[in-house]
Amino acid sequence: MAKLIECVPNFSEGRNQEIVEHLAEIARDVKGVTLLDYSSDTSHNRSVFTLVGDENGIQDVAFSLVKYASEVIDLNKHEGGHPRMGATDVIPFVPIKDVTMEECIEISKKVAKKINEELQIPIFLYEESAATQNRKNLAKVRKGQFEGMPEKLQQEEWAPDFGERKIHPTAGVTAVGARMPLIAFNVNLDTDNIDVAKKIAKILRGSSGGFKYCKAIGVMLEGRNIAQVSMNMVNYEGTPLYRTFETIRFEAKRYGINILGSEVIGLTPAQALVDCAEYYLQIEDFDYDKQVLENHLLS
Amino acid sequence: MAKLIECVPNFSEGRNQEIVEHLAEIARDVKGVTLLDYSSDTSHNRSVFTLVGDENGIQDVAFSLVKYASEVIDLNKHEGGHPRMGATDVIPFVPIKDVTMEECIEISKKVAKKINEELQIPIFLYEESAATQNRKNLAKVRKGQFEGMPEKLQQEEWAPDFGERKIHPTAGVTAVGARMPLIAFNVNLDTDNIDVAKKIAKILRGSSGGFKYCKAIGVMLEGRNIAQVSMNMVNYEGTPLYRTFETIRFEAKRYGINILGSEVIGLTPAQALVDCAEYYLQIEDFDYDKQVLENHLLS
Repeated sequence: MAKLIECVPNFSEGRNQEIVEHLAEIARDVKGVTLLDYSSDTSHNRSVFTLVGDENGIQDVAFSLVKYASEVIDLNKHEGGHPRMGATDVIPFVPIKDVTMEECIEISKKVAKKINEELQIPIFLYEESAATQNRKNLAKVRKGQFEGMPEKLQQEEWAPDFGERKIHPTAGVTAVGARMPLIAFNVNLDTDNIDVAKKIAKILRGSSGGFKYCKAIGVMLEGRNIAQVSMNMVNYEGTPLYRTFETIRFEAKRYGINILGSEVIGLTPAQALVDCAEYYLQIEDFDYDKQVLENHLLS
Repeated sequence: MAKLIECVPNFSEGRNQEIVEHLAEIARDVKGVTLLDYSSDTSHNRSVFTLVGDENGIQDVAFSLVKYASEVIDLNKHEGGHPRMGATDVIPFVPIKDVTMEECIEISKKVAKKINEELQIPIFLYEESAATQNRKNLAKVRKGQFEGMPEKLQQEEWAPDFGERKIHPTAGVTAVGARMPLIAFNVNLDTDNIDVAKKIAKILRGSSGGFKYCKAIGVMLEGRNIAQVSMNMVNYEGTPLYRTFETIRFEAKRYGINILGSEVIGLTPAQALVDCAEYYLQIEDFDYDKQVLENHLLS
């Protein structure tokens, strides 16, 4: 069975639809790759592509997109609400099927090397591909943004993983790495009190002592006038969805508040939800790879 | 995206491994088809093949297997514990992906017609393909078995759907139809009292007033000395797994008995479990086809 890898490159262009459509055309032309989705945010001036493909195809498509982006996007002229440091800002590789995290890390390094050698863009390896702890977190890597990168690259601890200590004049710096699939999972509370959502979010957040692979904030859903715990589940194996859901349920009880419902935004691997069914139905000895019919059909 | 159809033919041969292996070879040789599994039961003297393929491949493989079975299996010499009426006893077609039940019914009728025309085996259409209510149930169609078929075919209401009122001399009669995927789902109770499992099974069974698409019996798991509600879920959309699970939970409470766990035996479509996660996590507006990543990858 072919290995399947997801790649979610972020480009610093969300206003010029000609460029975005050309990126999509490039992606569609690469053999062994499917373009699942792409969307642009004009206020962020940024586009996110979701691709999936085999081991070779996913490397080819990533490089081809970065090459074109480096030719047409000039960061010196870029304005937008989202932090960014490169024409291609960040490229995560994600294991989907019959592929290990280690293999995705290898892929990320191969692509990083090629981008640097052929396009002279310096690369930081981040997340699972990071060489040191302080490069794991993308926000830390990107701090200073495009404008601050020339100076940051001179700092002792910020030599690029590939390339010299100078930015590409127009394409800046790119972060390349491997990570688990990210699931946007929100839980709605039967209250208009955002403080409750914020308190529960703090309990859940790995960074404040909660679940290691959960990022969480409390927000208001203005249209419905209810508070929501909005989460990014960055490793559904390490922190399954049901665990945060049940924790929200029992923490909200302290305030006499119930859960109204939840939302999964965008794509999710089937396994993240099947794992929850396994928990709630108390299924013994379930073998996801062997027992789920569709797993035998993926080419 | 290609339509994906499952086919689960049952053959009246489970002892001669040469014949079974040759059936497997035939299945592996058909283009557009994957042989997911095959297993033989020597006491039943019967083999079950699980195949999946596109619209054309699945018809080709079904016909090729039936043709070979009709050449090498002689029902006059068949002995075994399982009811049977044909060399190929029954051929269900099952919608898996991007295919409707109506299309699977059409496929079943095309294959049935070809088997009859080219091999002179009379066919009963059963389950969703059945022309009348009393042909839906396979047990009713097969009643009388191979030995009783010559006489049964003479009865007013038992003219075959394809073919004349006489059996194939060695290959008998075959049932062909379309049905939903079947999931074997068992729930273990914290009791050694089989009567409780039997009472709950009766509550669940469609045939005794329970859920329409649930077949259930109470059995003992001798090795663990616990009682089990053993179910065949014949349409997980009509009767989802969580509904029987929660019903067992609240019915068992009457006796002060808890659920120990459950088992899914063999294959299940991912959607049957994702539907359960949707229920327990109270996910609002989840779109299975669009939001599950793997659905974009199936060829």
